[in-house]
Amino acid sequence: MKKISEDARKRRWGIGFVPTLGYLHPGHLSLIKRARGLCRVVVVSVYVNPMQFAPREDFSIYPRDPKGDAEKANAAGADYLFYPSTNVMYPKGSQTFVQVENLTRFLCGPFRPSHFRGVTTVVAKLFEIIEPHRAFFGQKDYQQFRVIQQMVKDLHMKVKIEMCPTIREHDGLAMSSRNSYLSPKERRAGISLFRSLQRAKILVSKGEFSSSRIRRSMMKEFEEKAKFKLEYLSICDAQTLQEVTTVRKKTLIALAAWVGKTRLIDNILLRGE
Amino acid sequence: MKKISEDARKRRWGIGFVPTLGYLHPGHLSLIKRARGLCRVVVVSVYVNPMQFAPREDFSIYPRDPKGDAEKANAAGADYLFYPSTNVMYPKGSQTFVQVENLTRFLCGPFRPSHFRGVTTVVAKLFEIIEPHRAFFGQKDYQQFRVIQQMVKDLHMKVKIEMCPTIREHDGLAMSSRNSYLSPKERRAGISLFRSLQRAKILVSKGEFSSSRIRRSMMKEFEEKAKFKLEYLSICDAQTLQEVTTVRKKTLIALAAWVGKTRLIDNILLRGE
Repeated sequence: MKKISEDARKRRWGIGFVPTLGYLHPGHLSLIKRARGLCRVVVVSVYVNPMQFAPREDFSIYPRDPKGDAEKANAAGADYLFYPSTNVMYPKGSQTFVQVENLTRFLCGPFRPSHFRGVTTVVAKLFEIIEPHRAFFGQKDYQQFRVIQQMVKDLHMKVKIEMCPTIREHDGLAMSSRNSYLSPKERRAGISLFRSLQRAKILVSKGEFSSSRIRRSMMKEFEEKAKFKLEYLSICDAQTLQEVTTVRKKTLIALAAWVGKTRLIDNILLRGE
Repeated sequence: MKKISEDARKRRWGIGFVPTLGYLHPGHLSLIKRARGLCRVVVVSVYVNPMQFAPREDFSIYPRDPKGDAEKANAAGADYLFYPSTNVMYPKGSQTFVQVENLTRFLCGPFRPSHFRGVTTVVAKLFEIIEPHRAFFGQKDYQQFRVIQQMVKDLHMKVKIEMCPTIREHDGLAMSSRNSYLSPKERRAGISLFRSLQRAKILVSKGEFSSSRIRRSMMKEFEEKAKFKLEYLSICDAQTLQEVTTVRKKTLIALAAWVGKTRLIDNILLRGE
């Protein structure tokens, strides 16, 4: 992989990079297509990074489909599929970690304490190996996008971080590899995340900018949903991720919920006042 | 600086890099000369990195001489002197840190708890800005060399880390910008670090490989030295920095001591059994 990147750099070809955990769905494919449109060389990595899963999380059962991934990535326009082993990403004796501090204290951070440290460490390594000019991330994982964008800025890395829109099922559920865990009943309960965000969007479009009133309306969506347990719902500044009391120029509404044993996240970016 | 590095890279010129805290002495100049001999472009950075000093350490009084540094670096063969401000290295809102874990638990680590985190964070940033092919560090700061070497390996950074020999005063005291703090009396006490290492070297050359016996002999050098307070003395594996009971193939003897209010370090690499 290093040789391929080095050669591409020497020819001054733009390298586009889409890091994934595999089990590719249309959300991933939209990132690959976007990279294809902007870059001469498109690299997709598939690596289920153990470091970004906590001990009790779903690392061991995370869905994997190497053959399907290769076909889908190829069809979407990828030139290279990088499939590193843990021996390459974390060889014996490896002990270096990259951490972004403030942004990881909000939203998913408190509920997944070492998650973002795992993400930034592995993405920093992948950036060093692949040397991309641009890297593509989905809005569904908005906090991950912001954390990586901040890491790149702080460490003076020479890669442009691009955020692409969330791709959704026909009923609005954000695409995720974890959706494969859901039973039909859970699948229906999962739509509440999207529906609550739609409520917020409509309220804001009607001139309601009060976070507490928007939150109250969103919470109604979750009432009497047996399989649904909200983890957090944050109305926050899209840059700093700090809670805001009023929806202003760049506001993020993000939430996480457990639907049965599956954790789902979703978010929306809004312009308020 | 980014533009200069990018241009040099495009021309496929080798970039040699010597990061320093400034107040250049012959130890630094030997690194610059070594870089000059190996690389087409030689960059020296001068930055007194606040993050690698603890609150009670000597950041505010650390000696500075920008004009002298420019002259000396130039005379030793540097092409560029990079003099970043803290606004560039740690702009408002910066929050990303690089940490090497195991190696920083030994030697200076416990006595300077956030020191190496500061070093690896700033060096990672400098590497991203300067994109060196080779970077040069002195053996006097052996643990720093190992920590940076480990960071580069773990994060797959494309730079070769070179260690150059410690340069000493005529009486053996390792060159350091901090030597400027020493009174004439302290200056004489400071030689004990080197003398104790010489004792160890002679013992090992005579076939004495027992760490405890070598340590005992070294400690005699510090007896009844009023101005001298040993902080640590470690006989350890040069790769892992873990203590060893027997001097074997690649062993490091490293020590730190306070001479009055000045902290000095020194070390020696030995081949034992």
